[in-house]
Amino acid sequence: MSQNTTPPTAAMIVIGDEILSGRTRDSNMHFLAGELTRVGIPLTEVRVISDDEAAIIAAVRALSAAHTYVFTSGGIGPTHDDITAPAVAAALGAPIGIRDDARAILQAHYDAQGQELNAARLRMARIPDGAALIDNPISAAPGFILGNVHVMAGVPRIFEAMLAGVLPTLTGGAPLLSQSLRVDRGEGDIATALSQLADEYSDLSIGSYPFNRDGVHGTNIVVRGTDGVRLDAAMVALTKLVKE
Amino acid sequence: MSQNTTPPTAAMIVIGDEILSGRTRDSNMHFLAGELTRVGIPLTEVRVISDDEAAIIAAVRALSAAHTYVFTSGGIGPTHDDITAPAVAAALGAPIGIRDDARAILQAHYDAQGQELNAARLRMARIPDGAALIDNPISAAPGFILGNVHVMAGVPRIFEAMLAGVLPTLTGGAPLLSQSLRVDRGEGDIATALSQLADEYSDLSIGSYPFNRDGVHGTNIVVRGTDGVRLDAAMVALTKLVKE
Repeated sequence: MSQNTTPPTAAMIVIGDEILSGRTRDSNMHFLAGELTRVGIPLTEVRVISDDEAAIIAAVRALSAAHTYVFTSGGIGPTHDDITAPAVAAALGAPIGIRDDARAILQAHYDAQGQELNAARLRMARIPDGAALIDNPISAAPGFILGNVHVMAGVPRIFEAMLAGVLPTLTGGAPLLSQSLRVDRGEGDIATALSQLADEYSDLSIGSYPFNRDGVHGTNIVVRGTDGVRLDAAMVALTKLVKE
Repeated sequence: MSQNTTPPTAAMIVIGDEILSGRTRDSNMHFLAGELTRVGIPLTEVRVISDDEAAIIAAVRALSAAHTYVFTSGGIGPTHDDITAPAVAAALGAPIGIRDDARAILQAHYDAQGQELNAARLRMARIPDGAALIDNPISAAPGFILGNVHVMAGVPRIFEAMLAGVLPTLTGGAPLLSQSLRVDRGEGDIATALSQLADEYSDLSIGSYPFNRDGVHGTNIVVRGTDGVRLDAAMVALTKLVKE
């Protein structure tokens, strides 16, 4: 977590049997990836795991040690299978219990709705000692930040709202810039040229994505990096190479 | 891999910077999850990693040791960043080179198209010694099975076509059955009932998924398991519990 000396990286843990069974299509990973890229924090690993305490603990320990920031989605609701909060606390050795600040937020929310803050809903006030709360403008129940782990909801619009509150607190790196070129030639026809370019511009990431549209084989070439001048130079070289 | 004594499990490795940067939305995970559930092989972990040799080797080693089957998607095309095949070979200690059977498939494909099997395209004939080829009816370049690792393409329609060929070769468990009940009550109102049910039917997996449609808070409850009789009994008990 030496954020000032090495570029930041992020990892994500998607928690939920419903994703792994194919019932639900995860969208939080794609959303987080785009937002982090925008603020210059590359997402370099994602793990999707089941609602299982040992699996959560193992993933949190492995990823929080290896990355600047970790984000989790899922498993912080009121039901028996919502075990993310205590599992993250256990992974990082923090005590956890019903916390007054979180309880007050829930109490106000359910009072306003004329609903009871029952025992099940009170589970959502379980916050580890020392964690900072993450605001939930949709349904009140907060997420939290413990160490470098950001624990957020699985429901996409709540995840997205929580992330909006979290992003300004992160220390980003240089934003990742990208430029792309569409070529109406197959990947195999331009691969040698791309390989030359990748050798010459090893500070940039050069990806190629084949497509087939209306029977035409083509390739989108995407060049990414943090130095705009280098990126421009690579695009000029690329345009020349693929015309040869 | 004691498939006859313990229930099978599967893991997936999604390989590609384009997924992690947010450029591309992965769909292979969701597709694989649904297909494996159908044949009774639970997908219990997915890792999304970048086009990085060390990351691929680490993920392949960890997951192939822990699961009955591993599936990879991405990184088997003709360009410089397509490094999945040699990385998987390295992870499992298998030699790799251009193999005659794969080269013949590619030669026939490009001959038919009037295109050249150049050095870049020949990269797609790199297959580890001892691996079985996976048929690619879309664009010819084969995937392969090395040990319990199934190496497949990242382009969704090729991934899906390859999987169709692979599925009949897998030894499935009892198919996972599921039944669901929609309740027009919030999760927090029925959480205690669900918890009781989960205790009583600990052989089943009981998930709850809140929704908000036209201002109505409701919950979809999904009960999953391999024993149809138990599943029926749980649904009867569930219906009774949530009405209380």
